[in-house]
Formats: sequence, structure tokens, C-alpha cells
Amino acid sequence: MSEQQGIKPYVIGLDLGGTNSVFGIVDSRGDIKTQTAIKTGGYTCAEDFVKASVEALLPIIDQVGGIEKIKAMGIGAPNGNFYRGTIEFAPNLPWAHDGIVPLAQMFSDALGIPVGLTNDANAAALGEMVYGVARGMKNFIVITLGTGVGSGVVVNGQLLYGHDGFAGELGHVTMVRGAQGRICGCGRTGCLEAYCSATGVARTAREMLEKTERPSLLRELDAEKITSLDVSIAAGKGDELAKEIFDFTGTMLGEACADFAAFSSPEAFIFFGGLVKAGKLIMDPIKVAYDNHVMNIFKGKAQFLVSGLDGASAAVLGASAIGWEI
Amino acid sequence: MSEQQGIKPYVIGLDLGGTNSVFGIVDSRGDIKTQTAIKTGGYTCAEDFVKASVEALLPIIDQVGGIEKIKAMGIGAPNGNFYRGTIEFAPNLPWAHDGIVPLAQMFSDALGIPVGLTNDANAAALGEMVYGVARGMKNFIVITLGTGVGSGVVVNGQLLYGHDGFAGELGHVTMVRGAQGRICGCGRTGCLEAYCSATGVARTAREMLEKTERPSLLRELDAEKITSLDVSIAAGKGDELAKEIFDFTGTMLGEACADFAAFSSPEAFIFFGGLVKAGKLIMDPIKVAYDNHVMNIFKGKAQFLVSGLDGASAAVLGASAIGWEI
Repeated sequence: MSEQQGIKPYVIGLDLGGTNSVFGIVDSRGDIKTQTAIKTGGYTCAEDFVKASVEALLPIIDQVGGIEKIKAMGIGAPNGNFYRGTIEFAPNLPWAHDGIVPLAQMFSDALGIPVGLTNDANAAALGEMVYGVARGMKNFIVITLGTGVGSGVVVNGQLLYGHDGFAGELGHVTMVRGAQGRICGCGRTGCLEAYCSATGVARTAREMLEKTERPSLLRELDAEKITSLDVSIAAGKGDELAKEIFDFTGTMLGEACADFAAFSSPEAFIFFGGLVKAGKLIMDPIKVAYDNHVMNIFKGKAQFLVSGLDGASAAVLGASAIGWEI
Repeated sequence: MSEQQGIKPYVIGLDLGGTNSVFGIVDSRGDIKTQTAIKTGGYTCAEDFVKASVEALLPIIDQVGGIEKIKAMGIGAPNGNFYRGTIEFAPNLPWAHDGIVPLAQMFSDALGIPVGLTNDANAAALGEMVYGVARGMKNFIVITLGTGVGSGVVVNGQLLYGHDGFAGELGHVTMVRGAQGRICGCGRTGCLEAYCSATGVARTAREMLEKTERPSLLRELDAEKITSLDVSIAAGKGDELAKEIFDFTGTMLGEACADFAAFSSPEAFIFFGGLVKAGKLIMDPIKVAYDNHVMNIFKGKAQFLVSGLDGASAAVLGASAIGWEI
């Protein structure tokens, strides 16, 4: 058995982003042995994208000893559906924006290995379970704080996909009900994502600067161009208004996590993405708000962790983790 | 094999309520062959409760051919923990209100068969899966609308217990944030249960009667004694205010279900309990609010069903279902 396992020591991970598609060949400890990338756009159809991908992959597959050393491939992609191995109506992908692309099957046909596919946040959760801070955990939630708010929910050691493959959209629970809720990118109002994504934080900054006359380093910037990174830098310099923006954001995340506990009672919430670099500025208010709002039976039970995966390679690692699970 | 299966055609179900403990012996089709009951209170310790239970059980076990015909026993109990088989700090049980009672093990020792235990809402979900409208479903949510609001969440064909056994407390997600949220029995504010339980509906009725001068059949009653059944009867007679109370309740439930879809994307929401007897008065606003609030990707996918189990025996059937699953 050990010899057989030794024959296929690697998986391929594909982080399929709006701009770049990054491929890595990864071992079971999460070391990326070699990687390559192509532009995601610039193809009119999925067939051409797969063809270009395979051309880029063949040299790095040779580097690790050929396709017979590779157990499987995993793809993390926007609007990815695990059950069907498809990308469905992905607005930012020119060759998948108006239809259903069976990308897993196409790569499997081209490479002759099993291929699994899921969305980026689910891939991040698998990455934490296989290589990261969730090793050994069976019930946890990964929340990705980036341009949007994504999530991957693991219960009983399995990703929660729901009956249609689209479960775990925790960025779109409603946090502010009624007319005063912010418009969200999903077309609805009041979603967690509209407040706690990077763009949500920038919007909170603009609102706070408009509503008050309070001094802030952020006033030196063009309000329309403020980013969450600007807020993070200002808060790091002790700017009170910037700190309040993180308090507001973390408090809402903590209240949301209290509701999530009532659903799946995870042993940990794991945060991932650009906003997490703000460290205690965001993590402390999350924990305080959680403790203030969670049911008594859950109090003090869940850990609040930051992703253990290196930011630059986390998405490829997450995608590759699918390869070990299928 | 078929002979061996034939040897143990029954399970025992125990619906352990605050007042009565009802035992039924059930076959695989959900027919209750025989049943008995004892008072739940009146015992100073759990040992005495189990002893009295076994005394009541022995004659009905004999009726079906003896203990060797019984595969297992399931218990549905308030504050029941499936992982540990315990009842923990159940406020309404005199012999379990200030500690942890290993009731499953105690019954198993006394009867010599496997015994599983979970909370009442989880038992209801198992009952629907084994005998009811959720047969064949792998992802669904049962919401019980009674004195409180309970829930049992099934994902990938398994009950969602979370890392500590207490997952699925959907009655305690926060629907009204901040100071204006109603105080809930759990000690927090704004919970779904504070609005959509039977007591929540009665409270909505009192609030609406106080806030307006509008005519209503409900004004003929003592406001402090109005029940959800009174509201249901008035609405059935065409009372506009009573209908609005159900609209308000169903709308909040539908909005909550839209958030639940973002979590586990179930194929059905199944409603159970006294309030459900109001039929379309409550189910129609649930469906309308769900369609108005759910993410586009989930729209039109989930069914909204009413429990298929007979109210009087549903709790015993749900408890007995645990016996088939362990």
C-alpha cells in the first residue's frame, strides 16, 4: 500500500481568479513544488482556456515526474458547483458568464486524472482542514474577508454543500433589515457582505467621514478612493475614527458568528483574506461581540483563528486540497 | 439476513415532556403498536424516574413479544445531547434541572438494548426523515412552532449536531437587532422565538391591540389571556387584525428561512407544531417573504411543507426514529 501511495504523491491545484489562473503542484504537506499561471481572460470559449491551461501545465507536470505522479486535480473557482463540477454564470469570466461550463470534466478528459471543483471559499475551508489551522477539526467555519465575504462551512468533517451545491453563502445573511440596509452586490439589501467586505469597510469609512466632523488621517485622502488598506494603515497609526471603523466591522461579524453558532455550533471560526491583516483591530471586536451575543450554551466554546496558510499561495493550496478529498 | 431483521421489528420511542413521559413501541412504517405513559415529575432523582419507566414499559414490551423483538430505544427530551446521551440542565425537569443526567446509558443498562437521545426538535426532524414528508431527502430543516421555536437541521442525510451536540438552535438567531428587540426566554433579545413561537404570536396580538384602535374580534377577550389559538380562530372568521398578526409572524419566519438557505441550502423547510394548524394563514406569508428575501441562486428551489406526522403521536414517533438510526 505504501508503495502505491508513493506513486502518486502530488495533486494539482488551480486557483481560477478573475484575472489570473494559477496552477500549483502540491504534496500532502502543503508544499507547492512548482507552479505556473496563465491569464484567465482572453479566451472566447472554455475549450480554448482548457487547451492553454494544459499547455502551461505539461512542463511542470514533467518536472515532478509525469502525470502518473499526480493523484488528482482540484479547482477553486467563482460560482463553482462541487456536485456538478461546473462553473455557472460567473459574471467575471468571459467564457463562463452566460452559461454552465463543465470545467472539471473538461480537465479530467484532457489530463486523464480525477478533477474536483468548488467555489473559492469552500476551497479555502478545505485548505485549512488539509494543511492549515483546522487540521483535525470536524466542525468549523471559514469566513473569507476580501472584495466580498465568502464562507466555507464544514460539518461532521465534510463541506456543507446543501441540496444544490450552493450552501455556505454566509456573506449574504441579512444583518440590517428593512429600508436602511445597504445595497449589496447580490441585488438585495443589508447583507453581511455589504458591510464587512473590503469594499464594505471603505464604504463605512466614507459614511463616518461624512456624518461627523471628527478629525482623522483619512481626511487627507480622496474619500471616493479610500480602501480598507488605508483604514488599516490609519488605525495602525492610532487614528480613532479608523479604529471605530474596525470596531463597527468586527462587531457586526461577531454578531453574525453568534447566529452561525446557533446553526452549526462550530469549534472554530477561521478568518481569511486581506482584512484579517488588521489583526487585533478586527479580531478583538469580533470576539467581544460574539461573547455578548451568543447563546449561553455556546459561550466560551468556539475559537477565533486567523488562517494559517500563506496569503499568496493559500488559494492554490485550497484548490489543491480538493484533489486529496475526491 | 431477512430472518435476522425480522427478529427485531420494533423500536421504543420516549417523548419526555415537562408533564408526561409517553412511551410507544413502533414498527418500521411508523405504526405505534402499543403505548403507555407516566408523569415526568414526582421523582426526586433520575434513578427513580428510570425505575418507574421500566415498570411501565415491561407490560407493553411483553405485548409485542418481549425485549428480543426490540432493536433499540430513542428518547426525545428537552436539553438532550445526542453525543453524550445526556439531559443537561433542563429547567423543567425536577430530576435534571441542576446537572447532567446520563439518561441513555441508564435506560440501556436497565433494558439491555442500545438507547439514543436527542432534543425534541432533532427528534421531530428524524421522525420526518424516517416516517414523514422528508423520506428520501438528505438536506432539509424542520422548524417546530410551539411554546418555543425549535429546529432540526439535516445535511447530507445526517442531523447537524455541531462539535458539542447543540447545533440547530434556529429559534435563537437574532431577527431584531439592538434595543428594540423583544426579550427572549434565553435571556437575550430579538430572537426568532420571541416573535414566532405561540407565546410570541400572543405577544404580537397584545402589542397590535394596544398600538391601534382598530376593531377586532380579539378585543372581546382579556388581552392578557389571548393565545395563538384565539388569534387563529379570529383569523379563520376573517378578522383583519388577526390575519395581520399571522402575516407579521409568517413574514419574519420567511425572512429567517432565507438566511437559513444561505447556510445549508435545504430542499425543504418543514413546519411542525400548534401554529401550523393555521394553515395558509401562516404558510402563505412564509413563502412570500422567503421569495422576496432569498438570494437569486436559491429562488424557487425549496419546498415549504407541513409535517406529515399526526400531532398527537409525532413526538413519540420522532423519538422512536432515533432507535432506527443508532
